[in-house]
Amino acid sequence: MESCSIASNDNEEVNNKQIIFCDYISGFPKETDFVLKTNTIRLKLPRGSNGVLVKNLYLSCDAYMRFRMTKGGNSVVSAFKPGSPMVGYGVARVLDSGSQEMKKGDVVWGFTGWEEYSFITDIKSFVKIKYTDVPLSYYAGILGKAGMTAYAGLHEICSPKKGEYVFVSAAAGAVGQLVGQFAMLMGCYVVGCAGSNEKVHLLKNKLMFHEAFNYNEEHNLDAALKRYFPKGIDIYFENVGGEMIDAVLLNMRRNGRIAMCGAISQYNLDQPYGVQNLSCIISKSIRMEGFVVLDYYEEHYTKFVELARRYILEEKIVYMEDVVEGLENGPSALLGLFSGCNTGKQVVAVAHE
Amino acid sequence: MESCSIASNDNEEVNNKQIIFCDYISGFPKETDFVLKTNTIRLKLPRGSNGVLVKNLYLSCDAYMRFRMTKGGNSVVSAFKPGSPMVGYGVARVLDSGSQEMKKGDVVWGFTGWEEYSFITDIKSFVKIKYTDVPLSYYAGILGKAGMTAYAGLHEICSPKKGEYVFVSAAAGAVGQLVGQFAMLMGCYVVGCAGSNEKVHLLKNKLMFHEAFNYNEEHNLDAALKRYFPKGIDIYFENVGGEMIDAVLLNMRRNGRIAMCGAISQYNLDQPYGVQNLSCIISKSIRMEGFVVLDYYEEHYTKFVELARRYILEEKIVYMEDVVEGLENGPSALLGLFSGCNTGKQVVAVAHE
Repeated sequence: MESCSIASNDNEEVNNKQIIFCDYISGFPKETDFVLKTNTIRLKLPRGSNGVLVKNLYLSCDAYMRFRMTKGGNSVVSAFKPGSPMVGYGVARVLDSGSQEMKKGDVVWGFTGWEEYSFITDIKSFVKIKYTDVPLSYYAGILGKAGMTAYAGLHEICSPKKGEYVFVSAAAGAVGQLVGQFAMLMGCYVVGCAGSNEKVHLLKNKLMFHEAFNYNEEHNLDAALKRYFPKGIDIYFENVGGEMIDAVLLNMRRNGRIAMCGAISQYNLDQPYGVQNLSCIISKSIRMEGFVVLDYYEEHYTKFVELARRYILEEKIVYMEDVVEGLENGPSALLGLFSGCNTGKQVVAVAHE
Repeated sequence: MESCSIASNDNEEVNNKQIIFCDYISGFPKETDFVLKTNTIRLKLPRGSNGVLVKNLYLSCDAYMRFRMTKGGNSVVSAFKPGSPMVGYGVARVLDSGSQEMKKGDVVWGFTGWEEYSFITDIKSFVKIKYTDVPLSYYAGILGKAGMTAYAGLHEICSPKKGEYVFVSAAAGAVGQLVGQFAMLMGCYVVGCAGSNEKVHLLKNKLMFHEAFNYNEEHNLDAALKRYFPKGIDIYFENVGGEMIDAVLLNMRRNGRIAMCGAISQYNLDQPYGVQNLSCIISKSIRMEGFVVLDYYEEHYTKFVELARRYILEEKIVYMEDVVEGLENGPSALLGLFSGCNTGKQVVAVAHE
């Protein structure tokens, strides 16, 4: 019977490698907190589903994912489910769709699983990729969350003006590299810091930051900042936390703005660093503001992606990617963020097309 | 000769008690850091002067004055001059004027000396008092810097909306008492904290705060805030610093706003408290903003004074003043701020009229 043979066809399954999150952790994540498992999946949606079935191409490694490894998550993200595949931003090809908004063959980016194929029931985070004249992996970075984070944090939180002094920490990272370049395009003077001389070289010679320094070679961050910013800092884009923010506060100018994007040095500590110079916020009328990029997509993403694509095609922006091959290398790539192993945006290539 | 007798008249001098700032200090100020001295002054301006000669009536005791006792001051205020009278906000009567903007008999408020009579050459801080149907001492507080600080910090920095949850520290102080009442007039739910049960009683029964607590009786500030704000805090008006801001950060709601007005617990410490919960600013998209009231006078003072006077005359605001009699008692009144001796605005009455 025809209905029977269709049913049997629907049930055809393929192997699906997955990165399973074992259990909630405290302190630094280790590779043994994740396990590679091979499951099977039907490459066809269940009848009546309005989700999508996707083949994952590129996965984004992001520091915020550390919060998902702690029981309860935080106020923005929920925790991973122990025993299930990890979830994160990624770029994927639609294999089957029950949604009116995307069809088989479309390329999308949004929240997907750390696995070869994902069946996504909640597709509201998915954005259909319009421009394919740039590498698809860019949608796991500059044309996705990392780019929007840099854009929203710099433009919406800090309102840079020509000639202002801008400091970016983790400047060779996914977001920092873009913040610095966006600020330079606004006519700002930009200094970045990073954790190795190789990164500093790239910042100065490839990304053309006005200055850059290796914070590991500075015994006194306050003195370093005074050297690079003799007139003080107007805008600080915070990615690291800890001692750096304390030194920055001492060097901010009146009416300075601090975009609080991340504090990667603090994510794995039970006892966070105590910031002592908060009173500078009062005496220098500083505005320090946290933000979550999710709040900016709706209003800004469409215009942002047009702008960023143009910058890429016109080579006004240099975008550094650190692509690791193979899903199985995902956990070590993700963990590498916390020791600064990545140069530029850390991406896991699950499949090339 | 007439010209001679006028000259001799001009030279007539009266005694002028002054509070002299002895020398720069570190740590807590002590009464011995100030000395009462009697000088003499001519009650007539020098020929050609465009300054004013004033009789001081009320002096304002303000926590920021601690910064003026440290060599170099801070980025907003310069240090006092050792061996010279202290300077602060005050209310004064003009005895002689070389300025077109004010004439003999006017009452003014602005920066004046801690002395009976002051010869002020730089009169740009002086505001001529228009309404005398309220006590003149109010211009050393609610109708002067304290009122404008509460108003600018609450309205301009925090933009309160009806139904929001507002927490005010040092709530029985000069500024805190007004922040809470302004917020209630906006339809907010307001909780204040203070350092004694007597102050808590006043907050609840005289100022009609929705709730108030004595922080000295709370072993765990985080738990106390969770009790008073089970749904979290939208707006925090920061006057104290230290442990309180750490506990507040844990209890802020998403998109919360913190007006950084002061950190009185920290002003006399060589090693400030280290704030550990700054990452809440990121995860909860909090805006923390410092401000200096001087930046708001020009745009807002005229409308503010109309509004605040109306609130006073209509008894919509209760204003607590703590008036100490006599210039000689000024230093101990000022020092009392740092141990919370004052209830309401601390003023020194130099002369009543």
